[in-house]
Amino acid sequence: MALTPARTMPGVLELLPLDQIAFQRMLDVIRRNYERFGFLAIETPVIEYSDVLLTKSGGETERQVYFVQSTGALGKADEGMPELALRFDLTVPLARYVAEHERDLSFPFRRYQMQKVYRGERAQRGRFREFYQCDIDVIGKDSLSVRYDAEIPAVIYSVFRELAIGPFTIQLNNRKLMRGYFESLGIVDGEQQMLVLREVDKLDKRGADYVRDTLTGEAFGLSTEVATSILAFVQVRSTSLQDAFDKLDALGAGPEAMEQGRNELKEVLGLIHAFGVPETHYALNLSIARGLDYYTGTVYETTLNDHPQIGSICSGGRYENLAGQYTKSHLPGVGISIGLTRLYWQLRDAGLIDTAKSTVDVLVTQMDEAQLPAYLALAGELRGAGIATEVVLEGGKLGKQFKYADRAGIRFVVVLGEDELARGVVTVKDLRREDQFEVARGELVKTLRVELEQAAAMG
Amino acid sequence: MALTPARTMPGVLELLPLDQIAFQRMLDVIRRNYERFGFLAIETPVIEYSDVLLTKSGGETERQVYFVQSTGALGKADEGMPELALRFDLTVPLARYVAEHERDLSFPFRRYQMQKVYRGERAQRGRFREFYQCDIDVIGKDSLSVRYDAEIPAVIYSVFRELAIGPFTIQLNNRKLMRGYFESLGIVDGEQQMLVLREVDKLDKRGADYVRDTLTGEAFGLSTEVATSILAFVQVRSTSLQDAFDKLDALGAGPEAMEQGRNELKEVLGLIHAFGVPETHYALNLSIARGLDYYTGTVYETTLNDHPQIGSICSGGRYENLAGQYTKSHLPGVGISIGLTRLYWQLRDAGLIDTAKSTVDVLVTQMDEAQLPAYLALAGELRGAGIATEVVLEGGKLGKQFKYADRAGIRFVVVLGEDELARGVVTVKDLRREDQFEVARGELVKTLRVELEQAAAMG
Repeated sequence: MALTPARTMPGVLELLPLDQIAFQRMLDVIRRNYERFGFLAIETPVIEYSDVLLTKSGGETERQVYFVQSTGALGKADEGMPELALRFDLTVPLARYVAEHERDLSFPFRRYQMQKVYRGERAQRGRFREFYQCDIDVIGKDSLSVRYDAEIPAVIYSVFRELAIGPFTIQLNNRKLMRGYFESLGIVDGEQQMLVLREVDKLDKRGADYVRDTLTGEAFGLSTEVATSILAFVQVRSTSLQDAFDKLDALGAGPEAMEQGRNELKEVLGLIHAFGVPETHYALNLSIARGLDYYTGTVYETTLNDHPQIGSICSGGRYENLAGQYTKSHLPGVGISIGLTRLYWQLRDAGLIDTAKSTVDVLVTQMDEAQLPAYLALAGELRGAGIATEVVLEGGKLGKQFKYADRAGIRFVVVLGEDELARGVVTVKDLRREDQFEVARGELVKTLRVELEQAAAMG
Repeated sequence: MALTPARTMPGVLELLPLDQIAFQRMLDVIRRNYERFGFLAIETPVIEYSDVLLTKSGGETERQVYFVQSTGALGKADEGMPELALRFDLTVPLARYVAEHERDLSFPFRRYQMQKVYRGERAQRGRFREFYQCDIDVIGKDSLSVRYDAEIPAVIYSVFRELAIGPFTIQLNNRKLMRGYFESLGIVDGEQQMLVLREVDKLDKRGADYVRDTLTGEAFGLSTEVATSILAFVQVRSTSLQDAFDKLDALGAGPEAMEQGRNELKEVLGLIHAFGVPETHYALNLSIARGLDYYTGTVYETTLNDHPQIGSICSGGRYENLAGQYTKSHLPGVGISIGLTRLYWQLRDAGLIDTAKSTVDVLVTQMDEAQLPAYLALAGELRGAGIATEVVLEGGKLGKQFKYADRAGIRFVVVLGEDELARGVVTVKDLRREDQFEVARGELVKTLRVELEQAAAMG
């Protein structure tokens, strides 16, 4: 029989075990922090009805959707859109979930969801067709206090502090403030504001001159004065909470939307501090606009101070109405998303991921086949104490067993030979410290437990 | 705009938050135990190349596969099988993974994988189109000692003991023993053995008379004597380890395959005991055949003693060669699968799932809006101590806040009003014990931590 080449499609990130463990540790940290703030887990199916997923779709989304057909439905082309599709984000499924289960949920509904989404991207380095999103959202019924906008950065802070991937800054802006400021410059039309915002979004990549030229060029026809004002506005960054307040005040009076946006920002910035986030870790950044049209108030981006090229590692904001396409209920919300697959890939690329540690703590070696029951009993004891233990069931040279442990990232190797058995001790090799010690058989579990707890506490 | 009805397709299990928490707890228990035995996590993409997934497929599988097409590929019917499909199990992806990454893996390779799989089943109560499989396998290179067949039941025991869903029995058989025994009765043809086995599989559902009639009927044409021998064989159950040995011996001498199977079973049964599994929790059951053709040695099923109608909750066995369709390497293995979605659904149906506990431990209420910073500080302290805490950001009547906590399954509600603030205390309401107590503000974290640790220790 001819062999089929074993391969995966481009755009998926399949990891070897030690990499997978590092990835899983990040997932665990995110989940733990989401739960610590009272967010509740939900999972939604990967496959949804196409008409449910694509109610709101613009062209871009629909071009990237994967459609699904069971065998029976194959070959029936030209019958319009297939009935089923794979989710392309977690926000649309959340909207559907909340609308479907509204009567069974308590509001404000804090939910987290950490699942994979699918997009038919063109194959390209760093573009994923399957990737994890780790989302939190708070959904209100009828209304939702702007205070929730301050809780989200507290969660972001907690997550990225524990992930320990370097110093980071949560950057905030408010769409109402932007809108009002644009109105004060005479750019009143919402459509044109969006187009200007899209240009302004290119500031980091293209530079101020490029953006100014575009804004004063034919397509926009703004005066140099207005373009300069816009560029000054979007370059506002705060260095402290007081500085943020001062810079917001320095913008001067403006139309209602601007005042509302400024008040919201001030309240949110102040509360973030009350949530315990240090001033070093969040800032006003009036260039943050977020591409999506549906953010209406606070918007967030988070960047790694030492790795600006990675871009935003966690983004989101406040929206007016989550599920208008499914229900008449008014459901405002605020949330963020961490695209973990891409983030992990970027961090690994930058050498910031430690992939040397296994989930296996101990390898019990096999010196003497006849002593297998003793090895199994020892392994059982260790496992009973919560220590992840692999036991060598098929012997071989001890050196080979050590090499196996080393390659597999297992820290402790336990040796129980004839000599040790006679003396009632166990030899423990610590592959991390490149050290070995003897311990009384009865003390082994306790000793390893202490070592492992210390290692865990040190990260 | 007309509303789109919010709904999911039939055959998916979407859970409300408290149910999701109960489900997630089961996933966590399984994962923790898999890791404790040294199994390593892998994840594979949901979408695979169709030719990779369907190399081995029989008719049944292919009829149930979901094919995937990105938008660009739509409408191109009659061009044969679509390029992409959703995985229908975790075994084929494991085979592909091991063949693809063979050089980067250490053997024996112990992997676990807990992900969802997809099957285009007909919509029917208890049949799922999307469901979790929680698999472990040990894959050897060239050979794999039968000792690994004894480790698997030790993992099963550890998982189901901690899941605490009632007494269970891991049932074992060996396909070589069966094959040899059939040979000794003159049923030498492998094909016919399979057909007989399939009939014998109906024993529980149809009864001995039905099976005997079929075996002696036209289709099989066996003598009454042979049919009776087969029925006696498959009704062998052991009550203890010694009983299992005795019953295996009582089968009498047979051809080589039978002797080999008997020796393997004896070694495995004995070692399971050395792994610390009590004799009450595993047994010889010579009726276990497993439908799949590719099991070649030990086979397992696990049943809940008090709920036989649920059927096997965890099944698997030993196979000769994992990935022959992708690689010339000989990769024997042994493994099991827990179909958690179906199991959860059945347990919930039987009232065996406790869905009353939230992941949120504490609700900090809002008595006085002006004290919000104090509430946030308190919540921050609790979170810092690892206590999952939700804080009410939008006030309202205290009674309503209590009701919210109760409905949400949150055990502790913290009240910090004017009176408490003046006296330096906090009132804690324990909604589980329907009790309340006062504690000094500085003692709150410690007190709740102790309470929660006790509750966790008690399950």
